Amino acid sequence: MIKVGIVGGTGYTGVELLRMLVNHPEAEVVVITSRAEAGLRVDALYPSLRGYLNIRFSPPDVDVLARCDVVFFATPHNVAMNMMPALLDLDTRVIDLSADFRIRDPQLWSQWYGEPHACPQLLSEAVYGLPEFNRQAIAEAQLVACPGCYPTSVQLGYLPVIENQLVDSQRLIANAASGVSGAGRQAKIDNLYAEVSDSFKAYGIPGHRHLPEIEQGLGDIGGEPVNLTFTPHLVPMVRGMHSTLYAELVDTAISLEELQNLYEERYADEPFVDVLPPGSHPQTRTVKGANTCRLAIHRPQGRDTIVILSVIDNLVKGASGQAIQNMNIMLGLDERAGLNTLALLP
Amino acid sequence: MIKVGIVGGTGYTGVELLRMLVNHPEAEVVVITSRAEAGLRVDALYPSLRGYLNIRFSPPDVDVLARCDVVFFATPHNVAMNMMPALLDLDTRVIDLSADFRIRDPQLWSQWYGEPHACPQLLSEAVYGLPEFNRQAIAEAQLVACPGCYPTSVQLGYLPVIENQLVDSQRLIANAASGVSGAGRQAKIDNLYAEVSDSFKAYGIPGHRHLPEIEQGLGDIGGEPVNLTFTPHLVPMVRGMHSTLYAELVDTAISLEELQNLYEERYADEPFVDVLPPGSHPQTRTVKGANTCRLAIHRPQGRDTIVILSVIDNLVKGASGQAIQNMNIMLGLDERAGLNTLALLP
Amino acid sequence: MIKVGIVGGTGYTGVELLRMLVNHPEAEVVVITSRAEAGLRVDALYPSLRGYLNIRFSPPDVDVLARCDVVFFATPHNVAMNMMPALLDLDTRVIDLSADFRIRDPQLWSQWYGEPHACPQLLSEAVYGLPEFNRQAIAEAQLVACPGCYPTSVQLGYLPVIENQLVDSQRLIANAASGVSGAGRQAKIDNLYAEVSDSFKAYGIPGHRHLPEIEQGLGDIGGEPVNLTFTPHLVPMVRGMHSTLYAELVDTAISLEELQNLYEERYADEPFVDVLPPGSHPQTRTVKGANTCRLAIHRPQGRDTIVILSVIDNLVKGASGQAIQNMNIMLGLDERAGLNTLALLP
Amino acid sequence: MIKVGIVGGTGYTGVELLRMLVNHPEAEVVVITSRAEAGLRVDALYPSLRGYLNIRFSPPDVDVLARCDVVFFATPHNVAMNMMPALLDLDTRVIDLSADFRIRDPQLWSQWYGEPHACPQLLSEAVYGLPEFNRQAIAEAQLVACPGCYPTSVQLGYLPVIENQLVDSQRLIANAASGVSGAGRQAKIDNLYAEVSDSFKAYGIPGHRHLPEIEQGLGDIGGEPVNLTFTPHLVPMVRGMHSTLYAELVDTAISLEELQNLYEERYADEPFVDVLPPGSHPQTRTVKGANTCRLAIHRPQGRDTIVILSVIDNLVKGASGQAIQNMNIMLGLDERAGLNTLALLP
Repeated sequence: MIKVGIVGGTGYTGVELLRMLVNHPEAEVVVITSRAEAGLRVDALYPSLRGYLNIRFSPPDVDVLARCDVVFFATPHNVAMNMMPALLDLDTRVIDLSADFRIRDPQLWSQWYGEPHACPQLLSEAVYGLPEFNRQAIAEAQLVACPGCYPTSVQLGYLPVIENQLVDSQRLIANAASGVSGAGRQAKIDNLYAEVSDSFKAYGIPGHRHLPEIEQGLGDIGGEPVNLTFTPHLVPMVRGMHSTLYAELVDTAISLEELQNLYEERYADEPFVDVLPPGSHPQTRTVKGANTCRLAIHRPQGRDTIVILSVIDNLVKGASGQAIQNMNIMLGLDERAGLNTLALLP
Repeated sequence: MIKVGIVGGTGYTGVELLRMLVNHPEAEVVVITSRAEAGLRVDALYPSLRGYLNIRFSPPDVDVLARCDVVFFATPHNVAMNMMPALLDLDTRVIDLSADFRIRDPQLWSQWYGEPHACPQLLSEAVYGLPEFNRQAIAEAQLVACPGCYPTSVQLGYLPVIENQLVDSQRLIANAASGVSGAGRQAKIDNLYAEVSDSFKAYGIPGHRHLPEIEQGLGDIGGEPVNLTFTPHLVPMVRGMHSTLYAELVDTAISLEELQNLYEERYADEPFVDVLPPGSHPQTRTVKGANTCRLAIHRPQGRDTIVILSVIDNLVKGASGQAIQNMNIMLGLDERAGLNTLALLP
Repeated sequence: MIKVGIVGGTGYTGVELLRMLVNHPEAEVVVITSRAEAGLRVDALYPSLRGYLNIRFSPPDVDVLARCDVVFFATPHNVAMNMMPALLDLDTRVIDLSADFRIRDPQLWSQWYGEPHACPQLLSEAVYGLPEFNRQAIAEAQLVACPGCYPTSVQLGYLPVIENQLVDSQRLIANAASGVSGAGRQAKIDNLYAEVSDSFKAYGIPGHRHLPEIEQGLGDIGGEPVNLTFTPHLVPMVRGMHSTLYAELVDTAISLEELQNLYEERYADEPFVDVLPPGSHPQTRTVKGANTCRLAIHRPQGRDTIVILSVIDNLVKGASGQAIQNMNIMLGLDERAGLNTLALLP
Repeated sequence: MIKVGIVGGTGYTGVELLRMLVNHPEAEVVVITSRAEAGLRVDALYPSLRGYLNIRFSPPDVDVLARCDVVFFATPHNVAMNMMPALLDLDTRVIDLSADFRIRDPQLWSQWYGEPHACPQLLSEAVYGLPEFNRQAIAEAQLVACPGCYPTSVQLGYLPVIENQLVDSQRLIANAASGVSGAGRQAKIDNLYAEVSDSFKAYGIPGHRHLPEIEQGLGDIGGEPVNLTFTPHLVPMVRGMHSTLYAELVDTAISLEELQNLYEERYADEPFVDVLPPGSHPQTRTVKGANTCRLAIHRPQGRDTIVILSVIDNLVKGASGQAIQNMNIMLGLDERAGLNTLALLP
């Protein structure tokens, strides 16, 4: 069995890793760290794990972690980049779910995260963990930076048309909406039930940290810089992310059928991307708990602006599920291992 | 007291009219019709009205309705247009909350509603009931066609920049999201709690009936045809509507401060439009139950695409509240009468 | 106009007082205190108040408060009892929404609140503000202790049968359920949307602070000590409280019709208690935002255990609305003044 | 592989069977019937199944079903009892999720279901499928009647104290609350999102069909008739069932610790019943999607009434999961097979 360590196991991406890894046929979680909860049984914090996991939180310790075959960071930004040099020196393979290694340019990273990058020398070594674009590099990586939830949803939606330069890359608009679990398990008034329920709002319109990540990713995909207006919204639901993507066709002669075929072909061999039949409107609940991205493509009124709909579970394909998918690729396992859970619907 | 009749009082816009009219200082509901529930006490269907309304549903009857000073239609489309000639002949003043008289072109109406218009001769007589644009005409109208919920939200958001030709009218994108009450009180599987809750989806992307209404309205406001991509979404909440509006600046020299000032000045005297301070993100819950539209204007990253955020309660400013506002204008009452209820928050 | 002061205006009961008082025909809020937010416009914290309230939070100051005709405490316990002697010395009339003066026995209070009572000498002076039982004393009180939300809901439900000794007072069971706003506007992980949504739980089963308050109140009503099993639960909704009350009939010859009549007669003149028709199941949404308690009485299968259902809005009849009702009684105003808002349904 | 047929695959218990069976290591779904949807791909109705199930709905046909090793009925009552004689004649083993064979007394069944029982001769042959009480009989049964959701939750909670005659069996009170999926996938106004959301209510207080089933079951467990007051409630959540069970101790000398030990011992070998540590309050979300019942036992204030808390997922341990558990027992498979999915939390 592959020995897995998790740094920062008390948050929602931590418990999601556990939910899936306890049923993974070839992996076993041997270390979960938490400074705050060290000594506590994990299933005392998360009773959903009772009967499946007989382990306690321990304080983070590089030497202990380095004995694992692979270590996940399920931490806020600014943790992984401080432990990374020591871990990589000990030849540990690392999958970082945080933002620390997603942006290659340390200046750009600093500008958005408000502090210097602690480990700029490793930025070029990190592989951006979007398997549908980077599978080969992931397989060989020692350090994988898992994409953010919005970036996953937006990039998978735009990928086929950007890759083929079919739309005006200077006029992209991504209107995205997330469930509240995306804000993490932190005691903030803004995320209280009584503040969020039965309401809807945009947030971060002047600038969200996922904007530079998405622009970098779409730039890599299309081979040219892109200009994106990105507007996140908060939905009164726990899980789920929905992106409504707008783009102007460069060549308006292309038909909706051709676009549909392009998407189906591009993703035909992808185990976790599902292109829905023409005319579909994916619901986030159809991927709740599953590592799937479902897509639909539209051309309203036959006009020049196409609309792509993309849904994921922000905690699964948008975080912990994709991290396990990356682990499977890195370790040469079946890419689907541990990820066969269907969406919980209704 | 002004005598009020309501046709179709069993739906959500009907009960909303009642909720506000029972506390209106100068109006009294004397007739509420419903074929299906004729004879039933209204407060047996809606216990929230117990103690406030001592009246029963009656079958619709033009002569009875004509004795009212004003009649509201809170019906699905295709009802008002069939009763309208008889009612107008009897000099009744009518406020239609349905879609029957919102679109001036009968061909366009037929194309979107899938049947011939029953009463095209009255289309030119109907006044579009958006007080912030049409107040004077409403005051003199015999027949007011209340705007749809999405059209209200979208038009109030775009109005100042369209009116002043500050944006490219051929590249408008309105990404809107509605609570489930917008679907009405109809027994449909798609609107069950277990189908809608904890999920998010787009719908009607190929074409929604509010698109031609919005394009007509924005065309009137700007004096030139507009091209809009309109994408509605369903939010797991009962009430509330949020529009995220995108537009490209024609003159990029205009500053965000100038735009903010433009909005504040345009709506300074409007009792039911509230322009939020710079940098705001309006939440739908801040207008829950209130006849208010709250707006915020952004220019993300200082780029050329501006983003306007507009929230209303779909059942109030998006339907019944705006209808009462129209009634107040038509009858020369204080425009705020009966509409002083604050949002229920939390 | 009556001058009103509010101590602790940042919580949910504070903003509820404001929502109703800004439309009160004879009262005006002139002071709202908050140490943490002193200087901030109230409508910056609660945008729902924009346009209705032109006032800022100020630090608490007894002399300023004493200039008000009436002062509300919308604070956690342990605030009012410290300021009370000074305020009462200045002849201010006070309505305390907190728990400080609800329990007459200081030992019992200390046992449940975990600290000595700061002001035991005033406990006997405080009038328990349940108008349906204590109206006359409230009218003459200088200090009114508003009942808790659960105690209001449970006492109004049991009142007629306890008052008439119709049930076994040693075998009462109150199974109650509250919306999340009852936990207040505090940054706690347990109250996050992602923790509460789409789930249901009991809490406080070994002992909830409202138990001694309810037992004291029912003892006063029935004239003998009672024994109550009280089990609160948390419902994934913002507002609303539902109590399912069980009692064994002492005389099983009494019919359900007689019980129904008893309830209807007992509450016939009460403006804010509504006894539903036989066979009803009140929904909390029928009182959302309204100062109403709706009741239904059942005798399942004709057996000896009766079941009473009681719903209120925990923030209105369970807190701020009842406080205003008490103010109206104390000041000789129409008891309904400012409280005519209907429930927001749907 | 075991060949599985499902009659009535369009409802929520149908899709739940599919969600779990597609990952069952030893079973394969070969037939799913639906008159209304015959010919439609199953994953067109339930997109969550895309990629996992390549099958279409077919009209119900006894001969086709009889070729399966086991047939599930996921139908409303009154379907299974009409097809059962033919199926049993063909030696098919049947697991009925409906109410048709849960009550042994045909008169009692008729009284509650409002029609004669179509197949009374088979009632005595049906085995009540509560594995924790009936495992051996289930293993040998040809026809298993799966318990209702409320009966599962209530019986598992009461079982140890009833089995040991520790409480007054004539004074049981079960206050239960269910998520909305319990009402099924039927187009009813009462179950619309806008009717159910942000509200709470009791229903069926005069008498719910699960009452006689629970009383029969508890009577079997304790060996004497019981008298139960059973009050179901509707919670605004999709899945989850919470029962708060009250009972009076016969011998008040028994300690809470002894009761805790009793529960832990009784369920020590049960794979799907989890007795929580003392003082716990189980949340329904800790079993969301899982075939687990979690229990806690309390004795508030050391008085004579004990309170047992019991949570299940109404669609899993309350329906489809328990049905698969029964299948595993009947066919001699690992009782956990296909049921290893953890709760989805958050």
